[in-house]
Formats: sequence, C-alpha cells, structure tokens
Amino acid sequence: MSSIPSFPDDLAVQFEPYLPSANTNGFPSLTLTFATSLDSALSLGPGIQTQLSGSLTKAMTHHIRTFHSAILVGASTAISDDPGLNSRIQGAKHQPIPIVLDPNARWNITESSRVVQTAKERKGRAPFILVNSQNLDDGAVVERKKMLQNYGGGYIGINVDDSGRFKWETILSMLKQELGIESIMVEGGGNVINSLLEEEGNRRFVDNVIITIAPTWLGKGGVVVSPDRKPDPKGQYTQPRLKEVKWIPMEEDVVLCGKLNASSTLYNGP
Amino acid sequence: MSSIPSFPDDLAVQFEPYLPSANTNGFPSLTLTFATSLDSALSLGPGIQTQLSGSLTKAMTHHIRTFHSAILVGASTAISDDPGLNSRIQGAKHQPIPIVLDPNARWNITESSRVVQTAKERKGRAPFILVNSQNLDDGAVVERKKMLQNYGGGYIGINVDDSGRFKWETILSMLKQELGIESIMVEGGGNVINSLLEEEGNRRFVDNVIITIAPTWLGKGGVVVSPDRKPDPKGQYTQPRLKEVKWIPMEEDVVLCGKLNASSTLYNGP
Repeated sequence: MSSIPSFPDDLAVQFEPYLPSANTNGFPSLTLTFATSLDSALSLGPGIQTQLSGSLTKAMTHHIRTFHSAILVGASTAISDDPGLNSRIQGAKHQPIPIVLDPNARWNITESSRVVQTAKERKGRAPFILVNSQNLDDGAVVERKKMLQNYGGGYIGINVDDSGRFKWETILSMLKQELGIESIMVEGGGNVINSLLEEEGNRRFVDNVIITIAPTWLGKGGVVVSPDRKPDPKGQYTQPRLKEVKWIPMEEDVVLCGKLNASSTLYNGP
Repeated sequence: MSSIPSFPDDLAVQFEPYLPSANTNGFPSLTLTFATSLDSALSLGPGIQTQLSGSLTKAMTHHIRTFHSAILVGASTAISDDPGLNSRIQGAKHQPIPIVLDPNARWNITESSRVVQTAKERKGRAPFILVNSQNLDDGAVVERKKMLQNYGGGYIGINVDDSGRFKWETILSMLKQELGIESIMVEGGGNVINSLLEEEGNRRFVDNVIITIAPTWLGKGGVVVSPDRKPDPKGQYTQPRLKEVKWIPMEEDVVLCGKLNASSTLYNGP
C-alpha cells in the first residue's frame, strides 16, 4: 500500500480539541471515527467495501490514527475489508496497536492478511484479537495465536455476557490494564458503532466523535449507523447528541467533530 | 406565530448559487429542502413533529421560501404538522403558494387550519390541494374547495398512475401551465422526498438541494430519507450524488447545498 501525503497543518490544528487526552475515569480515551453517506450508511451492504469519502478525509483518518495507542474494529470489518489498521500518513511517528473484537473466532487471520504483512514490513503493529475465553483453546485459535506472537501480537480471552457479547467495560479496562492502552480509535463496523451509541451506559465511554459525511445517498439496504432506542434503567430513552460541535468542510465531504461523554453532565448544578 | 429575525446578509449570499433560476426544460425549478438527524431521520416517527435544527437554519428556510413561487408538501406532513407554509422572515417581500399532494383527500383542511388562518391574516397565500381527479366530486372535497376559493386557493384534480400515485412529470407541468409556477421548494415528508431521489427519471426534476443536518441520532424507527434502489430502464442503479457541493456550518448544525439535476450530464462529450 502506498503512503498517503501528509495532512495539511492548517487543517490538522482544527482537530486538536478532539484528540485524546488523559482520562480520569479509569478507562482509555475513546474516539469514534467513521464515514457515512447522507443516509448514514457505512457501506452498500454487509461485506461490501464502499468508497465514500475523498482523499483529504482519508489523510485526516491516517493522521488521527497516529495519536492513538490502539485502533479497534469488529470481526466483520476485519473479514470483509482485510484492513492494514496502521497509519500510512507520510512520516507517521507512531503506529497504533490493532485490536479486533472476534468473540466467536470467525476471522481466519493468516500470514498473508494485510495487517500481518504490515507488521512484518514494520509499517504497523501486530494485532491483538479478543475472543470469548471459551474459544481460547480451540485448535485454530492456538495456531493463529502462535503465528501472531511471532510478530508481537496475540489472542486474549474475555468473558462474554448472556447474549454472547463482550461488555465494553470489560474490554476497555482489560486493554488499559493488560496492554497499557491509553487511547483507542474505534472505526467500525456498524454493530460496534451502534452498540457504543445505543446505551447510555456505553455512551459514557465515548469521548470524541469524528464523522465524515459524503454528499451521496447509498439507498435502503446499506449498513447504517442508527442506534436502537434502548431505555435506561429508569425506562427513559435519551437521544445521543454531540456537544462542542465543529463542522469542517473538506473537498466534497464534511467532517463533524464533537464530544459525547455523558459523564461531563455529572458536574451540573451546585 | 411570531415573525423570525432576518437572515444575516453574509450567510444569505452563500446561498445565491442554489436559488432557483429560469429552467429551460419546461418544468418549474425544483429545490429540495429538509432537515435530518445524523441518521437521516426527519422525525422520531410518522406524525411526530421533531425539533431538530437551530434558530439560524430556521431563519435560512424562511429566507429561502421567499425566492420560490410555491412550497410543496405531502398530505401526511400537512396532517401531522398543521403547517403555515408561508415565510415568517422579517420583511418577507414575497409569499409562496402552498401546494399539498393529497391524492386520497385525507387532509381535513378547515377555516382553523393554520395555512388558512395565515392566508386570512394576509401573512401567506391560500393553498392549492392536488387530489386524484376521481375524488374531486366528493362532498367533503367540494365543501373544502368552496372554503379555499374564498381566499384564492382551491382543489385541483390530477390523474394518478396504476399504483395510485401522482407522476411528478404530470404535477410539475400542470403547476407551471395552470398556476404559472416557475419555482417550487419541496419540503417533505419522507415519501415525497424519497420519491424524488429514488428514480433517475424523477431526479432530473430536482435542481437544487439544501439539507440541514443536526448533530444528533434519532435512533431506529424514525421517518428516514433514504431512497429505494430502483433500477433504471437498463436495469442499473446509480446512487444520487450531489454536485457543486457547499457545506455551511450554522450554529450546531451544518447546511449542505448542492445540485442534483442529471440533465446537466446530457451535455457531456463531443
């Protein structure tokens, strides 16, 4: 993969308020980053890679990756996109650790997966893959783990909840404690993003949001970012709304920056 | 309804390239205007009025209304919102004619409907309501027509297609020929907007698009703008994509301006 021209300084400075800062809540600082169409679609359908945004917002994404300890995606994204999960921006000073959520160990990662190739070429880091603890002794997982450990990555077992999902609280505190990760850029896919927006309990983990919107409609049937309206323990649903909003036009796209972390509202009142 | 403070000149000038100009294709110039959440929802659900955008984008909408011969909405919007369909911007020099698409004559418009009140107070024009020609002699329609005619409005019968819908081509040429309408601002609701985006044959009627986006997610279950992927006569689907794009941040919202009219591509090549 060719490298990406550097991101212009006059644009980069506009993103500074939305880069990770030290978090006092015991969890890594979390940045949610993705690109959608006007009808909030990440892609034309499950497993279909869809080019949405222009070259400048691509450079922006690779620039922002260098400010994070880790990049996190779901297994479906890893399987369909075979992503590098590194920063290809010219002169990148830091490479994030790729983290893939794969409770059911669906991703058949091999020596020829792009993220492994990238690690071999020392253009990025080897990934850590999070699986359900019960899958950690599977033959295939043991093999893949051995392969990844050659490059400094590995598999980590995590307990799932009753519905077979990881809890964000468990993932995030583990990543901080076990791998020393202080900041995470969450890039997709739809299920991962929606789960962070759906529940008020999960939203509190999201500090910064950086969304690229392209001026097109992908039409019904796409993979969309739109949270379920899950009520809080009191039976109320509150729509997530961004604070400290900034819209930055870039070529044909716009980039929306904002803050979501509900914990800041804890300080309301006398 | 109180009037709205005037729209600042430095913002107004940015919209000039997206105001109606004389159309050479025999149809009125059509501007598609609406406000959505990040997940492309116009409202939380059918019939639920949802406040999405801020006061500055509201002023923008009322400013832009004064440049159009007509405002057009569907019956569902008229029924749920009871809209004034006028411009309440301070010093409005021109009021558009309200047009409501109501093939099945569902809207029980009365003397106390806001659009009629507005016309009585000479703060707006009386509406024309388009019904299926077969409904023009219904007792209720005859009564309502008599009432509207007192204020300069009325009912117009139009033939529907096999699926009980109006064809845009029929509506638009009728409005131009019968009412002398040169420009139309289409404001909703979901069905009306999607039908203009869905088919390549309909998209050609849309000249300018002005969309406000608010930095919130309404969540699944809302009324969304997202066209069906209808193939053209050759069996191909092309996603609508805006041209000559401009993004204008306004308070917490962004306003996206662009051009859609596919007819401009007819002039490609030698």
